[in-house]
This record gives sequence, structure tokens and C-alpha cells, in this order.
Amino acid sequence: MKKIAVSIGDLNGIGLEIALKAHDEVKTMCNPIYCINETMLQWGAALLGLNVPMDFNTEECGEVFEITPSIVSAKAGEASFDSFTTAVALAKTSHADAIVTLPINKEAWNLAGIIYKGHTDALEDMLGHEAIMMLGSNRLFTILFTHHVPLKEVSEQIKTKALHRFFINTHEALRVEHIGVLGLNPHAGDGGVIGDEEAKIAKAIKKANEELDKDIFFGPLVPDSAFTPKSLEERRYFICMYHDQGLIPLKALYFDESVNITLGLPITRTSPDHGTAFDIAYKGKNPSTKSYINAIKEAVKRSEKPMLDF
Amino acid sequence: MKKIAVSIGDLNGIGLEIALKAHDEVKTMCNPIYCINETMLQWGAALLGLNVPMDFNTEECGEVFEITPSIVSAKAGEASFDSFTTAVALAKTSHADAIVTLPINKEAWNLAGIIYKGHTDALEDMLGHEAIMMLGSNRLFTILFTHHVPLKEVSEQIKTKALHRFFINTHEALRVEHIGVLGLNPHAGDGGVIGDEEAKIAKAIKKANEELDKDIFFGPLVPDSAFTPKSLEERRYFICMYHDQGLIPLKALYFDESVNITLGLPITRTSPDHGTAFDIAYKGKNPSTKSYINAIKEAVKRSEKPMLDF
Repeated sequence: MKKIAVSIGDLNGIGLEIALKAHDEVKTMCNPIYCINETMLQWGAALLGLNVPMDFNTEECGEVFEITPSIVSAKAGEASFDSFTTAVALAKTSHADAIVTLPINKEAWNLAGIIYKGHTDALEDMLGHEAIMMLGSNRLFTILFTHHVPLKEVSEQIKTKALHRFFINTHEALRVEHIGVLGLNPHAGDGGVIGDEEAKIAKAIKKANEELDKDIFFGPLVPDSAFTPKSLEERRYFICMYHDQGLIPLKALYFDESVNITLGLPITRTSPDHGTAFDIAYKGKNPSTKSYINAIKEAVKRSEKPMLDF
Repeated sequence: MKKIAVSIGDLNGIGLEIALKAHDEVKTMCNPIYCINETMLQWGAALLGLNVPMDFNTEECGEVFEITPSIVSAKAGEASFDSFTTAVALAKTSHADAIVTLPINKEAWNLAGIIYKGHTDALEDMLGHEAIMMLGSNRLFTILFTHHVPLKEVSEQIKTKALHRFFINTHEALRVEHIGVLGLNPHAGDGGVIGDEEAKIAKAIKKANEELDKDIFFGPLVPDSAFTPKSLEERRYFICMYHDQGLIPLKALYFDESVNITLGLPITRTSPDHGTAFDIAYKGKNPSTKSYINAIKEAVKRSEKPMLDF
């Protein structure tokens, strides 16, 4: 079985509860290694009224501090960063096949003086590679060409060369046989009548397919019909031109199942698609483990190489 | 029961087949008046191998010409325009409470020398009002603030004054108690960090609610979480800033049920959310009547006034 390093996230949030409650299911899929300080683990479990399973293997890291449920704190920020870097180190030294990161609090990282905004930019910096962001689960995966960009600036980034490189990198990282590429405009521009970016997208698709000597990329697809049941029977990977083009249909269709998958790095990293949920942490509210369990599944699946998928 | 004038659409397409096959269900909801030439009706029904029901009430219009299944023709374009204007005339003279338009072929209208691109702009011109485009069915309705505009130009149209007027007109036409208004940018701008249009949207919402002396409009909502199951429990009417923001989730969730509803005009008009489907016309392919039947339902419902809905 694959070894998966799990970084435990912000200890004032829901990460530990999820890891403890999902363990029985997780251990059927992989050998998890939880990156957490043993004292903190016992303390947190006691606060949650949960037992620590006998086979809950940990990798010791971080310092002991007081858990203050639902509070943003520098200590918790530091500990979550230690847990994360420990997981990365396990993967880099081949002691783990992939990492799954439970949610951190960005403000807590900031308070702790950590220069990164989140896991993804930290990984890019630590590993010296550009990351590709994919979100989804099982029946639908959306890959974002642009991220947190104002909508009016998206068009400027639609350039044949950049798209072509992104397509090749995505193919390299993903190794699937069919990837839909969305247009930018209503009706994918309707033959150039509603915007002209689709011509650039089409050119990049053609170039990438020629280079790969195989038709991998299809499009530009009409955005509003790309996510209909019929379209999803034909394909489940989509390169989206902007954030909401990918996230609106994903969250409408598969809200609490989705997973973040960071591609293009030397190590595979996935994470659940939710935050620290401070509002329900340590309150007996039983947070959903669905997205985390899917993150484990995807980490196992994506760390098998080479993979070929439809 | 309400009287609904049905324009039959392009006779080389699937309109007549849908009208004939759905009649038994339609007549339980309203008194339909089909705007079609009697000879053409008998001819088309014979081609389809269908009987014309005894209670299939028609309003005579248009000329006799040869039906040529799946072919774009000026004669069919002219006949579909005659059917449409006949339906409008019935509504204008209170002989019908609303109209439902079956799909026309725009190229056929063009060949017939008709100056309009489609039903909506024809209605705006004939009735001297600006139309509001709403699409949806039952559990989700999306109202489009901009239509067939290149994505990069949407931002220019986000202006407080225009939004405010649009909100007031929408309320006037719709009379529902809760309308969600979407932001434009990822995370609705994240407090101004990713684009600034949300400030204008927020201002227009505030102004409209003040003018109406009631909180009708809510937002700006984060676009990617607006269409999750939880959000759809709270509201089902959404004003969307651009075409795909409304149509992507609608078609992902409710593909073949959706209906076009034209609001803001002195007469209520709905239509199914599909085209003439020349590829399957008169071929025994049994086109779905779901969207047309929903269009009839919505026409009946929206012609009741005043209506109050959640």
C-alpha cells in the first residue's frame, strides 16, 4: 500500500477531528503517516472526546502549545507549518508517496511570520516548480488556467504560447487521453462574433495535439454546454479559462465531494476542498470527512505512475 | 383556464411534432390556441404520421408551402414569422393571456427578409419595451444582466445606475421576495483584492432595496458558492452579471427542463430552451417535450398577476 503523509492543519480547526474520525476508512486505502506532535495529538483527542487509535502512526514534529479552539493564533500557525514541512520532507526523501494537507489558517501563518500565503505557493517555492491547480472528484475535474484574477483581466492572459505550454505541462502531469478545453466567451465566441480569444485557444490546442502526435485536447468547447450530463459522459477533465468557469459547475454538481489536486510538482499533493471551519471546531458538530477521504483516494491514485485514464 | 397562444415555429423543424405530441398534457393546464394554417397542420401531421386531435384549436395564419424537413427555407421563415405575429396579436387584443413560441430558424427569417434576429428583439420593437431575459425551471431561475457580450467587455457594463434600473425593472416584472445578485469576480472580489466591481453592485443593491423599502436583493454573492444545494434552498432567483455565469450552472443542473422567459414586456412570453433541431425533424426521433411543457407551465404561472413567490 502507498504511504501517505498527512499534515494535520491548524490545530484550532477541524483537521485533527477529521483525521481521527476518518482513520478507520483511510487505513483501508493507504498507510497514513500523521505529521503531529504526540503530546498535541493526545491533548487534541482528549478535547474532542476521542480515542487515538493504536495504529495512528505519527511523525513527530512541532512544539507543544495550548489548543484554543476556533482562535487564530501564531503558535497554531507555526505548528501547522511544521506539520506541513514535515510531510513534504517525508515525500522528498521517499518515505511517503504523496502528501495530503488538512486546512491551515492563512492569517495564523501570517501571524507566525511565515512568508507564504498557502500550501501551493509554499510548495512551488520549496520544490522550484510551477504548480497546476485541479479541483474535482471522480466524475468531474476542472483545471484552472487562471486563478485569482479579476474577471476583466482574464482576456489578457489568453495567449497562444502560454496556453500551449500549460496544455503540455498539464498533459505531462495528468497523462489522460481526453481533456476538454473551454472557450472564454458566450457560445465560445460564435465564430468570432462574440469575442476573438477562441482563435488563440484553438491554435494552442492544435499545436499541443501536433506536438503530442495525438488528439488529447478538444475544444474550444461552448462553456454553457460543457457541463451537461451528455458532455460529462464524453469527458471529465476540463481546462477552464477562469476561476468561476470551473468552480461554479463543480460546486453546483459535486459540492462536498471535491478535492484540490496540485499537479506539476515532483510530489503529489491533494487536500480537501474546505477550510479550517473554526465555527464548528471542537463543538461536537461532526464535520464531514467526505472531501478528506476523497483527497486520500486521489493522492493514492495520482501517485501511481504512469497512469492512463479516459 | 388561461388561454395560451402557441406560435408553431419553423415547420421544417421539430415544433409541430412537439405541439401535437404534448397537446394532451398541455390542455390540462390551459386552453392552447395554435397559430398555424389548417392545410399546413394537416400536411405536417400526415408527414409525421400523427393524427390531429379534435380539440387542437387553431388560429388561421400564413400561406401554404411545401414542408421540406430539415431544410432552411424562406417560405418556412415567413410562415414562422406569420405564426409569431399572429400569437402576439392574440395577446395584444386579450384573446390570449400569454404566448409560447416554438423555435424558429434565424437564417430562414433572414432569407425571408425579416429584419429581426429573433423573437426577443422583435417583441421589444413591436411592443416598445426593453426585455429582461430569464432562464430556468422551477428550482432555479437565472436573470441575465448582460447577454451576448465578449467576456472582457462585461466589466464596462457594471455600473451602479444601470444595475439599479435593472434591479427595479426586474422586481417590477417578477414580484418575488428574494433575488440573489452575483458578484463578478472570483470570491466576489474578496473585499476588493480581486477586482472592484462588487462595490458598484453592492451600491446598486442598497439603493434598490431602499427604494423598494424592503430587502429584495441580496449580494453580491460569491459566484462559485451561489449554486450549491444549500444556497438553492435559500433562494432560486439570481441576477447574473454575464451569460455563462447563469447558463453554466443552469445547464449543468437542469439541462433539458429549462425554459426562456421574457420579462418586462406588456405580454408574457416563454419558449423552450432548444432550437429547431433540424437534425431530428420528421425522422421519428421523438424529440423531448419537457422544455416545451415547462414553457407552457411558466406562461400560465407568469400571466397570473400579481404574483408573490419566495
